[in-house]
Amino acid sequence: MKQKNSNSNNYYRFSLTMLILGLTTINYAFKVSSKKYEQIETGQKTPNIIIIFTDDLGYGDLGCYGHPSIRTPNIDKMANEGQRWTNFYVAANVCTPSRAGLLTGRLPIRSGTDTDIGPRVFFPNSAGGLPEKEITIAEILKEKNYQTAAIGKWHLGHLPNFLPTNQGFDSYYGIPYSNDMDPTTKLSHGEANVNPKVAYFNVPLMRNNKIIERPAQQHTITKRYTKEAVKFIKNNKDKPFFLYLAHTMPHVPLFASDEFINKSKRGIYGDVVEELDWSVGEILKTLKEQNISENTLVIFTSDNGPWTVLNENGGSAGPLYGAKATCYEGGMRVPAIFWWPNKIKPATIMDIGSTLDLFPTIAKLVNSDIKKDRVYDGFSLTPTLFESKKSTRESIIYYHGTKVFAARKGDYKLYFYKNNPEGYPRNLQKLENFELFNVQKDPSERFNILKKHPDVIKEIKDVVQNHKSTVTQVENQMIKKI
Amino acid sequence: MKQKNSNSNNYYRFSLTMLILGLTTINYAFKVSSKKYEQIETGQKTPNIIIIFTDDLGYGDLGCYGHPSIRTPNIDKMANEGQRWTNFYVAANVCTPSRAGLLTGRLPIRSGTDTDIGPRVFFPNSAGGLPEKEITIAEILKEKNYQTAAIGKWHLGHLPNFLPTNQGFDSYYGIPYSNDMDPTTKLSHGEANVNPKVAYFNVPLMRNNKIIERPAQQHTITKRYTKEAVKFIKNNKDKPFFLYLAHTMPHVPLFASDEFINKSKRGIYGDVVEELDWSVGEILKTLKEQNISENTLVIFTSDNGPWTVLNENGGSAGPLYGAKATCYEGGMRVPAIFWWPNKIKPATIMDIGSTLDLFPTIAKLVNSDIKKDRVYDGFSLTPTLFESKKSTRESIIYYHGTKVFAARKGDYKLYFYKNNPEGYPRNLQKLENFELFNVQKDPSERFNILKKHPDVIKEIKDVVQNHKSTVTQVENQMIKKI
Repeated sequence: MKQKNSNSNNYYRFSLTMLILGLTTINYAFKVSSKKYEQIETGQKTPNIIIIFTDDLGYGDLGCYGHPSIRTPNIDKMANEGQRWTNFYVAANVCTPSRAGLLTGRLPIRSGTDTDIGPRVFFPNSAGGLPEKEITIAEILKEKNYQTAAIGKWHLGHLPNFLPTNQGFDSYYGIPYSNDMDPTTKLSHGEANVNPKVAYFNVPLMRNNKIIERPAQQHTITKRYTKEAVKFIKNNKDKPFFLYLAHTMPHVPLFASDEFINKSKRGIYGDVVEELDWSVGEILKTLKEQNISENTLVIFTSDNGPWTVLNENGGSAGPLYGAKATCYEGGMRVPAIFWWPNKIKPATIMDIGSTLDLFPTIAKLVNSDIKKDRVYDGFSLTPTLFESKKSTRESIIYYHGTKVFAARKGDYKLYFYKNNPEGYPRNLQKLENFELFNVQKDPSERFNILKKHPDVIKEIKDVVQNHKSTVTQVENQMIKKI
Repeated sequence: MKQKNSNSNNYYRFSLTMLILGLTTINYAFKVSSKKYEQIETGQKTPNIIIIFTDDLGYGDLGCYGHPSIRTPNIDKMANEGQRWTNFYVAANVCTPSRAGLLTGRLPIRSGTDTDIGPRVFFPNSAGGLPEKEITIAEILKEKNYQTAAIGKWHLGHLPNFLPTNQGFDSYYGIPYSNDMDPTTKLSHGEANVNPKVAYFNVPLMRNNKIIERPAQQHTITKRYTKEAVKFIKNNKDKPFFLYLAHTMPHVPLFASDEFINKSKRGIYGDVVEELDWSVGEILKTLKEQNISENTLVIFTSDNGPWTVLNENGGSAGPLYGAKATCYEGGMRVPAIFWWPNKIKPATIMDIGSTLDLFPTIAKLVNSDIKKDRVYDGFSLTPTLFESKKSTRESIIYYHGTKVFAARKGDYKLYFYKNNPEGYPRNLQKLENFELFNVQKDPSERFNILKKHPDVIKEIKDVVQNHKSTVTQVENQMIKKI
């Protein structure tokens, strides 16, 4: 035994010498060739940016946000490798105003894309849209010579001058409004979405300004968006690019590819989310394969809370109260993951963030001089993302149409209005006695603590007052009809 | 440039040759010395086993199970490195019967440790306990020469013949029943637990059979349990050991060490859970430092759902319906993580498991011949844990006292009884029309689908019938008073 050990020690010594010799020469060889590497670097100083935006995905619908029966291994891995935010909000609790806020960094009230009448989103007969004078993330990136693509659902106006190609995007591939619009069936909305047929919804699929398919074949829509996204990334791997991938799903009607149908324990809703998870995996895999993952910021989030009135075909807000079309946490707090290998350190962030912050964050990243002729509602999140500092955002204004339903400052949230926690029917109610919640200590908003903290009320009212003083009347885009 | 590249290519070639030479000799050296490695292995064939059992921690109270404002980085890491189960159940929805089930692998109805009268747990005036003739995990491990320690809350009888040292444990350090018992205050239970004082609860701290402190200084109890556990691990690192670490927290009254007070955004409940997370980190760190992590199975789980009637001082079941003392998912489904580096592969498991399965799993692991003179209700989970196979468990019987409230087979759960979803007051109700839920598709149990699936009813009733045919009358331990 001793003999053997001594032998093996000699072998170790020899092999160690060889290894050191090998590593030293590799190191030298790397230094010799590093000039070439630097040149490539210089050619792409500005990072690529990808926003993956899901539709009606609730706070609790991903494995990494606690769903017990939907499998999302790719998104969970993304969350583990990046920053997972647990107090991240949308600009509005329904589709159109939420997207307007994300793309412009301005609350929808400033662009006339929210309203107090009707369902608060654009319909096929809408004549309005996100005004051309609004500046989108795509537009500031175009100024920095980015290649820009919008893939997926738009929902910010479908007349020619409102389409993505007129808002800073070089190309567009997707549906112009929600996948449950243009109904051809006499079934009610609820009935049509229980066992939906593609033919029930005569939604167009567009490439740039042209309709290329109608009705859009929704079974394969997630797969085709993904294919387009992968192609765009590969085609632009040597240039800085911006990809806005706004999935149609998991908004009803729910459709998934054959490979995903009946695969999830959560039913069709789970199938659809699991296909979205696959899609995220494909995007991240492509970035790695193209060797550009370390120069790409990927953001994953959702446009509003789950549409729970659709029963099993709607998602889950997890522990949060409320749903889509409400200002409760479940309506406006969404999953949000920021991923950028070696640049963003893995962490769970419990500070406040908003989709309104993506515009200034990206502007900061690319050194964009944003126009000073308008009010922005976002804060650059770069100190938190890249320097592990406290979030620069301290408050949230919860809008429902043109009314401020609630506002949060720090951990405290004050309600001025309430509505049906399921969102529909609306049952709007102005509160005679405000309600106050500590949404960190009580994320399910069970305990009104107004009487315990009268001091906080003024502070939050001041936040609202300051905000309101910056709001001016603009044209309402939602009421304009063809 | 070309010249440089050619140079660097030559260097690469040379260094590659050196590396291959180095690796080849290392490989040979490893083979030569592997005999020694095998001998070390043989010296400790049987794995160490640690069960970390929390008290009243809900399904939704950990970061890795979706809590938005409680930080649990150590448990999250454990979950990422191991198997995180999302359909894992307790043997009963309150403390005493839950523990009896875990330690014996038998439903509490078989040991007389559940009852239909009163709060269903042992009190300071109880004369009963887990019968000595019951065989605990500690006892089967003692037969295999394990060192065994119980640290923490016992709650299976506090008269001498019921204490851990009479149930297979070499040593015991902890409190014999719940930390809110032996009240000295005239305040109601709810009031006493809002801003609790240690002196309100005259609970003893014991070492083996002796009371060493009274009232137990609960502020430091998690810290002291952890210190004891670390010491036990270090003292026994060269022997196989079993550690049953049954934390007192986060059962009310909530107390945390100075280092954790006011540290969590979730208030005192979060402080307490974050200290438990620290404790888990200390245990795993110790295993690594002692170089025994790859020979140790660590299981983390909870004894029942959250005690939500305690408002902010109670936990959260996340997306699940119900609470402690109910048979809804929130009352009986708990976090469960299995960790064993290089032996258990990281995964999320959506199959069914139960604390009842720990006994047979551990028995299987150590090749124990379990006694055939009694009925067991557990299944060995080893095929899932170590071979990524489907769980051997297909059903769950949900007991409330001596009554079967519900049963699950596959994804379907059938209710025969219901009670108050908050657990208290009980409001027990026998259902004239059973209720059926698909708890994978509908984890929040919102949609009764009885009429859609009449076929399932008989199947589940058969499961219950088969189970009931194995149950015999035993002495009720809970009604015996001093």
